[in-house]
Amino acid sequence: MTSGQLWAVVPAGGAGTRLWPLSRAGSPKFLHDLTGSGRTLLQATHDRLAPLVGDRVLVVTGVAHQDAVRRQLDAVPADRVVAEPSPRDSMAAIGLAAAIVEREDADALIGSFAADHVIADAEAFRACVREAADVAQTGLLVTIGITPDEPSTGFGYIHLGEPLAGFPTAHAVEEFVEKPDATRAAEYLASGEYRWNAGMFVARASVLLDLLAVEHPDLAAGVRAIAADPGRLDELWPGLTKIAIDHAVAEPAAAAGKVAVVPGTFGWEDIGDFAALADLVPDPGTGVKVLGDPERVVALGSNGLVVPDGGRTVAVLGLDDVVVVDTGDAVLVTTRAHAQDVKSIVEALKASGRSDLT
Amino acid sequence: MTSGQLWAVVPAGGAGTRLWPLSRAGSPKFLHDLTGSGRTLLQATHDRLAPLVGDRVLVVTGVAHQDAVRRQLDAVPADRVVAEPSPRDSMAAIGLAAAIVEREDADALIGSFAADHVIADAEAFRACVREAADVAQTGLLVTIGITPDEPSTGFGYIHLGEPLAGFPTAHAVEEFVEKPDATRAAEYLASGEYRWNAGMFVARASVLLDLLAVEHPDLAAGVRAIAADPGRLDELWPGLTKIAIDHAVAEPAAAAGKVAVVPGTFGWEDIGDFAALADLVPDPGTGVKVLGDPERVVALGSNGLVVPDGGRTVAVLGLDDVVVVDTGDAVLVTTRAHAQDVKSIVEALKASGRSDLT
Repeated sequence: MTSGQLWAVVPAGGAGTRLWPLSRAGSPKFLHDLTGSGRTLLQATHDRLAPLVGDRVLVVTGVAHQDAVRRQLDAVPADRVVAEPSPRDSMAAIGLAAAIVEREDADALIGSFAADHVIADAEAFRACVREAADVAQTGLLVTIGITPDEPSTGFGYIHLGEPLAGFPTAHAVEEFVEKPDATRAAEYLASGEYRWNAGMFVARASVLLDLLAVEHPDLAAGVRAIAADPGRLDELWPGLTKIAIDHAVAEPAAAAGKVAVVPGTFGWEDIGDFAALADLVPDPGTGVKVLGDPERVVALGSNGLVVPDGGRTVAVLGLDDVVVVDTGDAVLVTTRAHAQDVKSIVEALKASGRSDLT
Repeated sequence: MTSGQLWAVVPAGGAGTRLWPLSRAGSPKFLHDLTGSGRTLLQATHDRLAPLVGDRVLVVTGVAHQDAVRRQLDAVPADRVVAEPSPRDSMAAIGLAAAIVEREDADALIGSFAADHVIADAEAFRACVREAADVAQTGLLVTIGITPDEPSTGFGYIHLGEPLAGFPTAHAVEEFVEKPDATRAAEYLASGEYRWNAGMFVARASVLLDLLAVEHPDLAAGVRAIAADPGRLDELWPGLTKIAIDHAVAEPAAAAGKVAVVPGTFGWEDIGDFAALADLVPDPGTGVKVLGDPERVVALGSNGLVVPDGGRTVAVLGLDDVVVVDTGDAVLVTTRAHAQDVKSIVEALKASGRSDLT
């Protein structure tokens, strides 16, 4: 095996409660085909990365989902799917993957890409990752920052610093900033100096772990100990610090001038809710967009999104901006304007003892 | 058997396409409990009439529904459910029932009451029917006219004539008038001289048939011939004139001064659509009205009507005036304001070859 190659790390977690009832704790959104492509988000993520990394892939997922992940990724060896005994946030997941890769190849790079993002232009994405990998070879932590096309308040932003000499598009990172309010988001967009933080990181595995060791030595030591002796996973995992990779490593490293960003313009979407999903789904000529079989939908005088996923026919009459999601045991009816509030339905179900539906 | 007693005739027909997908051609609305009372509309109609007529009941229904009708009315002898080989409108159905009753008792009265109406005050209804029967003993055709509480354009009206001497509330009928436009409906309401035509008729069976014999002698002879020899039903039925009882008998008889009306104020509703249904259904405290199990509904920031009839949970978020009807094979989402247009969904399904759902 050539040394210093890129590995893909795919954290596959998150219930996606704003996509209920399609996405459930037991069947999270990365396991679903949410674009009508015929591939689930997880499969599409793997398809997109395979030309870069071949079989150098590690998927980190919850123990409840490992079988489903292995079934969906039949080309990935079973031992490349790492099961977390319990959710301990993104740093533990990516850190463990980094430690496993580091033991395979001390010079290897890792690129971490969530299993539930949608990317329109895979070739443009891979070009960004290649540049990020080149930059990462210099010892920096590299992120890919999405060029914003609207003043979103739903994402954190990356403030660009100076261009990085010797690379086509990379810049230094001035700082990571939290999700802004609408006014500030508009300023960020207008300035042209900000990119969305999509949580994509490329670094030499050892660089990432060494940065972690500065801020959270116990966490770095913990994941390296598990990688050295996988039999200790259940013993050590529950004691690992629960923290996001942004806070654990990216923000402190940026403050220390050790982070670069490659701007990306490849059409990125994290499908945070049904309004975002509607943007990705075609209108088959019925007035509403349909994710699924258009033969199962009758829409008159309506627009919005229908997901006929329960085998039934869904009829919509005289509704503007409507969202109807039909599944085997639950039907959601709302509007795109209320898409962000769908999680409150999940909370209401839990509060009333109907967690079996969540 | 005492001569001259009242029989109840219950025409049980009509698909109720504006109540799709709850009501279907194969499962029309009279077979459903649409009020949450625990009794179907057909059963409630029988319950309401039984104190007046005992077992002197004839239900006339389509051949496709005779088994369901017999199952629901287990107290009614099987031969009191008459199956029409094909739909031939209300005059043939009620005329055949009248002819059957006439052979049992030449002096008998019949009262015809649709199987799919809802009446709030059964005792007040029966008091009206008793007065109508008393008037009918004088040889008149008697209708029960509903006192309007709004200027509805959805019903025909009955123009009251002079009070009938010797009866507490009955009037002569000046004329039957067709469904009015909004302006005229408002005038009718303001005048106090009009009642809604709910299609309820009480008359001596022989009087009704003799009136019919004047206007449509073939039809009167046809139903009397079938009553005399039920074996000829399939032979004679297809040749009977297809006409509503209003046009065939009530309007000509009113012009001849042979019709009386007993005004009714017993809370009447024909549940023509989901807006009307919503008026009859309680709000269990969820913000939306629920016909069915409230445990199957989660509603946040919404009002309207939910019918969870498919065994699934229905979640509604942020929708005003919404109507959601979930059944085993179809889900309807619309608003109360569009309730009258639901039949266009049924038409669209038929047009696209999905008649199995209608």
